[in-house]
Amino acid sequence: MAEALVLERKGELALRDIALPDQLRPQDVRIAVHTVGVCGSDVHFYTHGKIGPFVVQEPMILGHEASGIVVQTGSDVQHLKVGDRVCMEPGIPDPTSRASRLGIYNVDPAVTFWATPPVHGCLTPHVIHPAAFTFKLPDTMSFAEGAMVEPFAIGMQSALRARIQPGDVGLVTGAGPIGMMTALAALAGGCAKVYVADLAQPKLDIIGAYDGIETINIRQQSAAEAIAEATDGWGADVVFECSGAAPAILGLPALARPGGAIVLVGMPVDPVPVDIVGLQAKELRVETVFRYANIYDRAIALIGAGKVDLKPLISATLPFADSVAAFDRAVEARETDVKIQIRMPEA
Amino acid sequence: MAEALVLERKGELALRDIALPDQLRPQDVRIAVHTVGVCGSDVHFYTHGKIGPFVVQEPMILGHEASGIVVQTGSDVQHLKVGDRVCMEPGIPDPTSRASRLGIYNVDPAVTFWATPPVHGCLTPHVIHPAAFTFKLPDTMSFAEGAMVEPFAIGMQSALRARIQPGDVGLVTGAGPIGMMTALAALAGGCAKVYVADLAQPKLDIIGAYDGIETINIRQQSAAEAIAEATDGWGADVVFECSGAAPAILGLPALARPGGAIVLVGMPVDPVPVDIVGLQAKELRVETVFRYANIYDRAIALIGAGKVDLKPLISATLPFADSVAAFDRAVEARETDVKIQIRMPEA
Amino acid sequence: MAEALVLERKGELALRDIALPDQLRPQDVRIAVHTVGVCGSDVHFYTHGKIGPFVVQEPMILGHEASGIVVQTGSDVQHLKVGDRVCMEPGIPDPTSRASRLGIYNVDPAVTFWATPPVHGCLTPHVIHPAAFTFKLPDTMSFAEGAMVEPFAIGMQSALRARIQPGDVGLVTGAGPIGMMTALAALAGGCAKVYVADLAQPKLDIIGAYDGIETINIRQQSAAEAIAEATDGWGADVVFECSGAAPAILGLPALARPGGAIVLVGMPVDPVPVDIVGLQAKELRVETVFRYANIYDRAIALIGAGKVDLKPLISATLPFADSVAAFDRAVEARETDVKIQIRMPEA
Amino acid sequence: MAEALVLERKGELALRDIALPDQLRPQDVRIAVHTVGVCGSDVHFYTHGKIGPFVVQEPMILGHEASGIVVQTGSDVQHLKVGDRVCMEPGIPDPTSRASRLGIYNVDPAVTFWATPPVHGCLTPHVIHPAAFTFKLPDTMSFAEGAMVEPFAIGMQSALRARIQPGDVGLVTGAGPIGMMTALAALAGGCAKVYVADLAQPKLDIIGAYDGIETINIRQQSAAEAIAEATDGWGADVVFECSGAAPAILGLPALARPGGAIVLVGMPVDPVPVDIVGLQAKELRVETVFRYANIYDRAIALIGAGKVDLKPLISATLPFADSVAAFDRAVEARETDVKIQIRMPEA
Repeated sequence: MAEALVLERKGELALRDIALPDQLRPQDVRIAVHTVGVCGSDVHFYTHGKIGPFVVQEPMILGHEASGIVVQTGSDVQHLKVGDRVCMEPGIPDPTSRASRLGIYNVDPAVTFWATPPVHGCLTPHVIHPAAFTFKLPDTMSFAEGAMVEPFAIGMQSALRARIQPGDVGLVTGAGPIGMMTALAALAGGCAKVYVADLAQPKLDIIGAYDGIETINIRQQSAAEAIAEATDGWGADVVFECSGAAPAILGLPALARPGGAIVLVGMPVDPVPVDIVGLQAKELRVETVFRYANIYDRAIALIGAGKVDLKPLISATLPFADSVAAFDRAVEARETDVKIQIRMPEA
Repeated sequence: MAEALVLERKGELALRDIALPDQLRPQDVRIAVHTVGVCGSDVHFYTHGKIGPFVVQEPMILGHEASGIVVQTGSDVQHLKVGDRVCMEPGIPDPTSRASRLGIYNVDPAVTFWATPPVHGCLTPHVIHPAAFTFKLPDTMSFAEGAMVEPFAIGMQSALRARIQPGDVGLVTGAGPIGMMTALAALAGGCAKVYVADLAQPKLDIIGAYDGIETINIRQQSAAEAIAEATDGWGADVVFECSGAAPAILGLPALARPGGAIVLVGMPVDPVPVDIVGLQAKELRVETVFRYANIYDRAIALIGAGKVDLKPLISATLPFADSVAAFDRAVEARETDVKIQIRMPEA
Repeated sequence: MAEALVLERKGELALRDIALPDQLRPQDVRIAVHTVGVCGSDVHFYTHGKIGPFVVQEPMILGHEASGIVVQTGSDVQHLKVGDRVCMEPGIPDPTSRASRLGIYNVDPAVTFWATPPVHGCLTPHVIHPAAFTFKLPDTMSFAEGAMVEPFAIGMQSALRARIQPGDVGLVTGAGPIGMMTALAALAGGCAKVYVADLAQPKLDIIGAYDGIETINIRQQSAAEAIAEATDGWGADVVFECSGAAPAILGLPALARPGGAIVLVGMPVDPVPVDIVGLQAKELRVETVFRYANIYDRAIALIGAGKVDLKPLISATLPFADSVAAFDRAVEARETDVKIQIRMPEA
Repeated sequence: MAEALVLERKGELALRDIALPDQLRPQDVRIAVHTVGVCGSDVHFYTHGKIGPFVVQEPMILGHEASGIVVQTGSDVQHLKVGDRVCMEPGIPDPTSRASRLGIYNVDPAVTFWATPPVHGCLTPHVIHPAAFTFKLPDTMSFAEGAMVEPFAIGMQSALRARIQPGDVGLVTGAGPIGMMTALAALAGGCAKVYVADLAQPKLDIIGAYDGIETINIRQQSAAEAIAEATDGWGADVVFECSGAAPAILGLPALARPGGAIVLVGMPVDPVPVDIVGLQAKELRVETVFRYANIYDRAIALIGAGKVDLKPLISATLPFADSVAAFDRAVEARETDVKIQIRMPEA
């Protein structure tokens, strides 16, 4: 039995004891969790009880953005030792599946992912995890930054799929947490400049404070006009669609340069109209993103080297005992908060 | 003055004399046209008077799929000589534009294209053309095959954008002329097998007669079911959407394997609903196609080497004098004809 | 105890009983071996006792190109059942290693490979193998063809690394077994035509009998001259160096077109001089090949679909009882044989 | 007649009047040259009279790294106007050649390049240049920085060919001017960290002063050892060979990770031994670099946005009147200077 933040059912959270498996396989490590970020998907399970086909039918521990300290290692584990500061990749594939053998284990249908029903998450003091998906943090990174690796990894996957060329002009539509992560990943990943478009000025102010990021408030000027001005009418080399909003998606062809790329990061719930002839007229390439694969080491390298600073995106840190309050704040403060983190008691 | 097949206005064709520029620049060649294919876009200008933003406002010569014989060479021309049998790329870009310098001259906004208003086409006995966009035919290729290079080039561009890997399973939705060209290009371009799905059995019979092509009549079985059966539920490596039909486009995610590619070749007139989350769940790459660039030499190499045989797709050949009849047949016989060609009198 | 072809030490082969592990893990299958091809590396271990760092220090069973029939399946195996006709990928990586997670398990330092010291090969009636590396043969493929998948996989890996574009002109230097496999893979993989250069006419005759392959006897004309003639002085799009010979490697820059690719398949024992400035002047890309990853399904798809016919490359088939004779023939008949296969007694 | 720095013959420079063509074509601009950098190749022509096949046989104006102000525009020029501050790409291809149509105009055999015999360079007050190869400088860039775009473009081309993925670890062997440019391009282009190895500590001190660059003095520790330590034995994702030194080239396989990339930037005069089996064992990709194509806009974007600061690499600026002295200093001060620039009198 261990204490954990349990989503009992839609709308009902409890900090309570729950029975958890406790078997450490030879290739596993046991980790004392230190910090856990609250993700929009955690909040969505809380408020809606489901995301697409994933429905909460049994009580489930929330949380999947975590850092911690190794407290026990399985007999086969070589690259980690007790005391190592780490962060954990929350999705575990079948390593011999066809997708895994291809290196795209993120799209392995057999993958299990923390806090995606029926799999428990990590908002509990100790977790057991495969060492292969547990990554050592460099001394230059705090636990709080370690718990930011997961959301940043999605931005990194987006930047990777974009195949950025050094000096590209990037454009991000939608300044939510993932839009911000994507903008920073694109900038660190080779863009000369990244424009971020949204209609919420407070969010634009947060991301616009970074060197190399310029913001477009689409209440004042359309993203198409702004990017045309900025690029002599040529368009952005890479457009990252992070809003999931139908009008933004319909307007994508106008934003990219001939031969450019569009990365679809935002997830519109239902099918939305796409201007296919518009995409064709510029022969645009459209990439899609699903979680990430082989990204954690790259994300840690960039954060650890100081090329990406995620600390300004941590809006608040609450103790584990206040986990329910942390989630209630995350539900309400969507306009002003970027990331809320929860710190475990022993941390 | 020269005789030509002139589209006077929507619905009205005339074989008549028309004044044409006659200046041969140093980098040009003059070509006696031999064979010209009738394209769906020629027919569409005839029946509708416009395609998207391109409106026929002045009499315009039709035709852009052509082969012929060089009869005069400009002073700078080196790789061609009088008597050479050739085919011609109908789109001429500004060679110093930004897109052209990048090698993607097909998306150069300044490109001029035969029989796209206000530019005249080639259904006339002689044309002047830049030597750089005129390609010598090998002895193994007939003029009829030479005039098939243009539509095949679109299939080739689709195959190129797909980035086929040797042994891929391909799937083409839509068995119109371009769907057939794409299937053959994908097969020659490395696919182990290409499935073609349509609801018109006569078309499926034509393309299904090729080794390596298998057909799916979607009146009998959905493309998704058929491809799942054929691939143990994994999906096609590359899906070429050539129908432009909204239901086909909506259903694309089910057809491709995790990490696979979709190439959008068909052009739906209006925006159509796309299942973006479905694309993301498999992290599919979506490519689009606009005409072609740097394709003619590759297309000629494959046809000339005998790896692709386009002759079975030539449904009929009519003399230039019967050009109007040829177009009227093309309007009516859409279900049974693949390609109608017009042969010039001196040929 | 099982009978096996055992390399006792350099130069000494014996067909004798040997103790073998017999534990079937849940993810394994047991296979009755049917046909095994003799590879140059098997022969090299026989004649030299080592290849590079791999030294035969204990008696080792030879053979790694095999097909067979599943006779038992582990409890977790889903895609195979008893009676399935299969071929086997001889290299088994650590599936959770860094290289494996990236999809490049062929360069995982932990990989074990049949008949590479100290790992036993498969020239024995039964083998136990992971189901994930065991591939079902289609009805259209014989066991003999199944045992050709392994050497063909190297050609396929070469074609994959080349990133062939549809209609490319390929050139293979060196018409040994791997050169032939590479030529056929490149042709099936999208090349319009593949030229093969060697100085042994008998080998050129064998590979030159295929449609789409043209041969260059470099005793009569240099490969550079021949390819320049064939391509109007432009060069081959992709050059596959399969000879491992120093003069061929030094002369590579002259063979490729500006911006083309060179794939280094042949393995020169020692460092050899490379004309780096020559490579740079055409900005060539040089790829290297090490075994293969994620290739077996593609290779089987191409062979099974009839796009590649490897049967003409099987020079002789000997019974298991004559295995030592088969190896002695392989040592001597290098000029005239391409592939010798050994058939197991129950097959 | 115009004053210019003329290389009369090997070892003899003169600042003197020389006759120059003065015809402005419609697509050209006339530029008042402001700043010109001295390149190693200029110095090499001065000291040796030739580079490879390029031999100085007639007096030739030196200089190809230039910025200036537009003073006249041809009638077709649209994107530039009199008074624009610009820098110029020194190589001009035939825009309709096969290589140019492919977008790889740098390997067009017909390219003419400033200060490469027999083509004059730009160390003269005014030059005429095609507008398509003349690039406007943003207000944030000085003329001195504008004249640094050319050498930086080589670093950028190297970074582009490497296909850096965000968060890669880079390693540069050789800390000459091009090695430094490459390190900065790789860092701005997405590397988390770039290691630079050389034996000259003063150069390492200059490049090591940049954030994100770490240096390896190979007198103290081999590059292989240092990179293994830094990457837990995995190796660099991308290795840029910028020394052109035979021992460095022979040792390349040890530096890269399995599946990594090597970019050959340095130009060894003669063929050098390469460890091909070493490259194959990790299945490394080897890219080569020849000048650059489609790079100027990207380079300017990165410098203009402040992501790359080249000013610390400008060692000295001399007036045009002292051009000969500038060259003599460049010959002698190779160990301590990175870049010497010459400023025109009117600037």
